[in-house]
Amino acid sequence: MGDLRAKSWAKISAQPESTLAQLFSDHPDRVAQLSTRFLLSDDGQDEEAGAGGIWFDWSKTHLTASLIDDFNELAGAAGFADMRRRLFAGEVVNPTEGRAAEHPALRGVGRDSSVEEAEALRHRMRMLVGAIHAGALGEVKHLIHIGIGGSALGPALAVDALARDLALVDVHVISNIDGVALEAAFAVCDPQTTLVAVASKTFTTIETMTNATSALKWLADNGVSDPSGRVIALTAAPERAVEWGVDETRILPFAESVGGRYSLWSSIGFPVAIAIGWEDFESMLAGAAAIDRHFRDSDGADNLPLRAAFSDLYYARVRGAQTRAVFAYDERLRLLPDYLQQLEMESNGKSVTAEGAPVDAPTAPITWGGVGTDAQHAVFQLLHQGTHLVPVDFIASIAPGDDLDAAHHRILLMNCFAQGAALMSGRHSDDPARNYPGNRPSATILCDDLDPATLGALIAFHEHRTFAAAVLMGINPFDQFGVELGKEIAKKIQQGGESFDPSTENLLALAGLD
Amino acid sequence: MGDLRAKSWAKISAQPESTLAQLFSDHPDRVAQLSTRFLLSDDGQDEEAGAGGIWFDWSKTHLTASLIDDFNELAGAAGFADMRRRLFAGEVVNPTEGRAAEHPALRGVGRDSSVEEAEALRHRMRMLVGAIHAGALGEVKHLIHIGIGGSALGPALAVDALARDLALVDVHVISNIDGVALEAAFAVCDPQTTLVAVASKTFTTIETMTNATSALKWLADNGVSDPSGRVIALTAAPERAVEWGVDETRILPFAESVGGRYSLWSSIGFPVAIAIGWEDFESMLAGAAAIDRHFRDSDGADNLPLRAAFSDLYYARVRGAQTRAVFAYDERLRLLPDYLQQLEMESNGKSVTAEGAPVDAPTAPITWGGVGTDAQHAVFQLLHQGTHLVPVDFIASIAPGDDLDAAHHRILLMNCFAQGAALMSGRHSDDPARNYPGNRPSATILCDDLDPATLGALIAFHEHRTFAAAVLMGINPFDQFGVELGKEIAKKIQQGGESFDPSTENLLALAGLD
Repeated sequence: MGDLRAKSWAKISAQPESTLAQLFSDHPDRVAQLSTRFLLSDDGQDEEAGAGGIWFDWSKTHLTASLIDDFNELAGAAGFADMRRRLFAGEVVNPTEGRAAEHPALRGVGRDSSVEEAEALRHRMRMLVGAIHAGALGEVKHLIHIGIGGSALGPALAVDALARDLALVDVHVISNIDGVALEAAFAVCDPQTTLVAVASKTFTTIETMTNATSALKWLADNGVSDPSGRVIALTAAPERAVEWGVDETRILPFAESVGGRYSLWSSIGFPVAIAIGWEDFESMLAGAAAIDRHFRDSDGADNLPLRAAFSDLYYARVRGAQTRAVFAYDERLRLLPDYLQQLEMESNGKSVTAEGAPVDAPTAPITWGGVGTDAQHAVFQLLHQGTHLVPVDFIASIAPGDDLDAAHHRILLMNCFAQGAALMSGRHSDDPARNYPGNRPSATILCDDLDPATLGALIAFHEHRTFAAAVLMGINPFDQFGVELGKEIAKKIQQGGESFDPSTENLLALAGLD
Repeated sequence: MGDLRAKSWAKISAQPESTLAQLFSDHPDRVAQLSTRFLLSDDGQDEEAGAGGIWFDWSKTHLTASLIDDFNELAGAAGFADMRRRLFAGEVVNPTEGRAAEHPALRGVGRDSSVEEAEALRHRMRMLVGAIHAGALGEVKHLIHIGIGGSALGPALAVDALARDLALVDVHVISNIDGVALEAAFAVCDPQTTLVAVASKTFTTIETMTNATSALKWLADNGVSDPSGRVIALTAAPERAVEWGVDETRILPFAESVGGRYSLWSSIGFPVAIAIGWEDFESMLAGAAAIDRHFRDSDGADNLPLRAAFSDLYYARVRGAQTRAVFAYDERLRLLPDYLQQLEMESNGKSVTAEGAPVDAPTAPITWGGVGTDAQHAVFQLLHQGTHLVPVDFIASIAPGDDLDAAHHRILLMNCFAQGAALMSGRHSDDPARNYPGNRPSATILCDDLDPATLGALIAFHEHRTFAAAVLMGINPFDQFGVELGKEIAKKIQQGGESFDPSTENLLALAGLD
């Protein structure tokens, strides 16, 4: 299989490097060939009444029919179809930890037993969310959600994107061990009407448990008589939550086979359901499920996450791009680049194959980005005239998120499209400082409307894009051993008695921690 | 000069690539050689009562005495001393626009006439800030500050970093043309006690003027009788602010020679002064001025911004790093990576020299990053085990920003130092998935306390670091022609009648904008 993969890579690398202008001039039907409208209806095929869609346009990238053929061959050589089957069958896809990765089952797409288990857990969550909304825990105005990494980025994104106008409960997602973050939540929450969600897969994460302890102390200091009665635990280790003092009725478990950075769809999504209501939370899952079915059932470049992975790998491995950028032309998606950073970099920032051999080409690029139009006034100088090739994704919504003068949204979208046009076309000037070389690639993801289903679909699209890229590179996207060493050294520092390099020793002494 | 530069680069590139472990073992005094304590006292030399300091440690980078010698030679070949003299003398340092760059003069360090002019403008601002605090515009609880790019990122950073506990006025920095951003401010501000600051160097920026118009409409719709009487204009084009309807008494001008991304120290800092008070605003300027004097008066690697530029250029040009990452282990500095992104990428994301010749090596890397400890749970996997070399800066403060249990800050700092140690040391494992190669560089910037003077110094340090890198690369950091083309195309789309590439045409049609 390795040989076949190498052969496909050789073909991909040997493809001619036409400019985007040349590609458009050679193929007038390029937009149709490289764009797809994805429908958020049940089967991803027919447009139901009210079901929105998402337009994916890769025509301004350097993908060609011939490159796609080669990438399809690579997918075959890499055993893509079988790995995808394993993913949805709940078989082991994380060999270093001997685990399945069953986040699609949380959305109803996976092996029957896992889907049923997820449904039962979701039912439990629904009951608790309903009870809280119905007042079973008294008046609840605020929720302090404490979690970090995968237990924070998804909830923060979904609440920020979907709960702006009509949050049923005011949700604050707190992750940093720096107490400044938690104090900011204390400053705006009324302890008498605040619940605390503690989200940790293992229920041992030091940041989360330290913040949870301080949150309970704050409740107690402010006259709440039963602080631990205000806690909801979201965890794959319910027994530890019980030990920590959370009543079993307020523990919402999720399956061990759900990875932290894929856990938004499990009980980690509790703050989202609390903020936007159960029906909208289910819509978010349904939107993700539409992408699951599409990813499971479509082949070759018709498969949108797979096609995105082709483009990502092309720029990372053939054109030497160490980064890719995501610009959301929508204030509601301002946290999306952070979310994708974790998803892609923690999944695919690896140096060895799933079999443990060193990779012979770059893996995940650095995902970065920002929000449009802000980023135009900050970093686009480098995109247009810098020396680094940065493939860009633009994401926008046709329906506005605001009720102000229509000029706001019109200018927003015009700028989004203008940037993609400018990156590609460039413009010659005899004054070198005013010259734009152009031929800089971008893809555009244009949603009909940024509703819960669309957000779910956008996130699931990126999950599968990341998985597809990992399969094509032959790496395991589901472990994250790279985060262990730093944690272990921090623990050793805390325990004392060990010595480190002279710089670290000196910094510890300066901070009075030696 | 070009030949001499090329010769220096050849020497730099030919240096042996020792591992960090080897460097520490060969040079036991490496920490002392490559670390400096900078004092925030008036002359940056003697410690005054209460003046804090900042510790800069580059010992865990690959800089060596011999590399520094070569870089010093490069600085000579690039005419660094003369360019620096020009900067502080108010001579032209932005040849494409024929302009000086006099942001240091705003802090009191520059040519006399510019310092005097800046003082006069600052006096005007002080009077208005004082009058507002004294109630001259009635009760003021909220300030909506509208600006974008350089008119937003600095105020947002400084307010977020310094005004958390004791904001005199609740400040909201709004930049995006997406009306969702402005609506979020409307939702939490009381129109009767809200002022609107409109910040735009040219007073024509479309995002800012559109948002300003909507903010005035909101005031009017909510019964404020004289909406334009609630506006403060911060601009280098006061005559346009007058035309727009702002009374001259509420216009705070700044000099044309102040670039947008260097304008925090001018009247663009108005929201900072409103939030933290005049004295603290002046302290922030004083901290920046201490760095100005240090940068102006120190030579070679004793010059901290210059030494940082050596490290930056080494990784960008010799080791092929397309990015550099900044992790603030301090929640109050969570916006610092965004600020530095603009400062560095908009300044140095160029492809031609100041003389208009194509550069023959990479210019600004992509600056990215995040906040610790959050980022450990999101992107550090790639830093430790990915295939891309990413030089990292860690920034932290010895004094805590919170009043919670001391465990919070202790764990925060221990994690910060542990990550630098882990990146450098790595750890061998026979299991390839658990192997950490190590030899990954980081610098640490450790502040005694994150007070206004320290924040000012941190920002000014990065300004001069960016300038120094530009001089060594021979590029002009003060223009930004790369942002023009996208704006022009957006304008053409708005005006209609022009046709674009098929993808752009199609996207416009989908969004109903054709």
